[in-house]
Amino acid sequence: MEIKRPLLLISNDDGYEAKGLRQLVEMVSDYGDIIICAPDGARSGFSCAFSATIPLRLQLRERRDKVEVWSCNGTPTDCVKMALAELCPRKPDMVIGGINHGDNASVNAHYSGTMGVTLEGCMKYIPSVAFSLCDHRDDADFEPLRPLIREITQRVLQEGLPKGVCLNVNFPLVESFKGVKVCRMAKGTWGGEVTKCHHPRGYDYWWMVGHYTNDEPEAEDTDNWALTHGYVAITPTQIDLTAYSAIDLVNGWNLNA
Amino acid sequence: MEIKRPLLLISNDDGYEAKGLRQLVEMVSDYGDIIICAPDGARSGFSCAFSATIPLRLQLRERRDKVEVWSCNGTPTDCVKMALAELCPRKPDMVIGGINHGDNASVNAHYSGTMGVTLEGCMKYIPSVAFSLCDHRDDADFEPLRPLIREITQRVLQEGLPKGVCLNVNFPLVESFKGVKVCRMAKGTWGGEVTKCHHPRGYDYWWMVGHYTNDEPEAEDTDNWALTHGYVAITPTQIDLTAYSAIDLVNGWNLNA
Repeated sequence: MEIKRPLLLISNDDGYEAKGLRQLVEMVSDYGDIIICAPDGARSGFSCAFSATIPLRLQLRERRDKVEVWSCNGTPTDCVKMALAELCPRKPDMVIGGINHGDNASVNAHYSGTMGVTLEGCMKYIPSVAFSLCDHRDDADFEPLRPLIREITQRVLQEGLPKGVCLNVNFPLVESFKGVKVCRMAKGTWGGEVTKCHHPRGYDYWWMVGHYTNDEPEAEDTDNWALTHGYVAITPTQIDLTAYSAIDLVNGWNLNA
Repeated sequence: MEIKRPLLLISNDDGYEAKGLRQLVEMVSDYGDIIICAPDGARSGFSCAFSATIPLRLQLRERRDKVEVWSCNGTPTDCVKMALAELCPRKPDMVIGGINHGDNASVNAHYSGTMGVTLEGCMKYIPSVAFSLCDHRDDADFEPLRPLIREITQRVLQEGLPKGVCLNVNFPLVESFKGVKVCRMAKGTWGGEVTKCHHPRGYDYWWMVGHYTNDEPEAEDTDNWALTHGYVAITPTQIDLTAYSAIDLVNGWNLNA
């Protein structure tokens, strides 16, 4: 009887060549067979977007030992859907997004393509985890993350995760981690999000930029607090968006149709 | 003293020319001043994506009475961010996404650009609602939705919504609505999501397609059940993605860093 090794599907939103993805693969490749299907370039801010109107293509970039690297011209979510449908010989035992260059805490989880990868895995009922480091630089050093990434990956491969729940793991950029906090999403808001520029041909255009404000900086149970204070933040994250607390309120409106 | 009328910001993912958006504006324009900022074409499946790398542009398409129509070359989320930063003379009293051609129930809420609009308004702490009809046709008839859309809009303008909570309102395609159900998101999954085609020049490409399966068809408290049985489904939806139920589990792993 053939004993099957675990199968890990890895993607990101920084593209298949990103250092964070390459280092992640190197960190976990002894745990199983690895299929990487990642965007052919940067796709930051792509959220759970999928491509309804453009034809998708796949390109094999590398095949060695137990690792296959594919690129796709679509979104991070497209990458997961394409890999599950066309590349994976069996249902993966785990989906990993990352390691992202930059944090995905608080409301950034809604915009993040790395979380798009992880939520897509979770929507397919596959145990899924996102790893992100608070460092946007192309040459960020992900090496200090190795022990915890290996421990979490091993744990999730062994025990799985509850159906409909994934993990959003964010690492602060510090000399040494103070510890690990299991958190909730902080409430925070983006402001100053567009900058107007003037084109040489005479028209206005805008770039998306912005700065983030933590709206509850004292809340010690949040991901933002953990990161600000040097802790690794693990935010269990769910597919179910229902605001159960508001059901009674809306029922109280006694709407009819 | 000048008495200010309510300001409503409206966007969608079907584009500024879509019938659903035009009919929505006509339905609620007596409630206040209206600014429309919507994509310059279809942006279905764009989720909460924003444009990190392309320059954005705005185009005034129409200005009449108390209604302004702008188009933007970006995503639905870009439209809201641009309108808040550049077009709205004051913070809107309400953000509305829709009326979408097609439903946004269950996990579709994660992929939907219409929900992207609504979640973006909610992330800016503005009372926000999405309206969608289970009819993808360009010439869908939105007229039967009028009384309930007006009632919900009026109610939200008067009373607001809890901070961090928005409404995802889906209308079934039926002769007459059986009533209104305040729901939770059903658990469901998309399958068969890609179809392979062969290009005349010899390479393979794929289109995103797929079919949806309700994984709990008997659950009468879900949006899918309501729609299947002829009820309007109102799903209170929240920004906070934290899976509180899983915090103890992950704490039990005793991770160290």
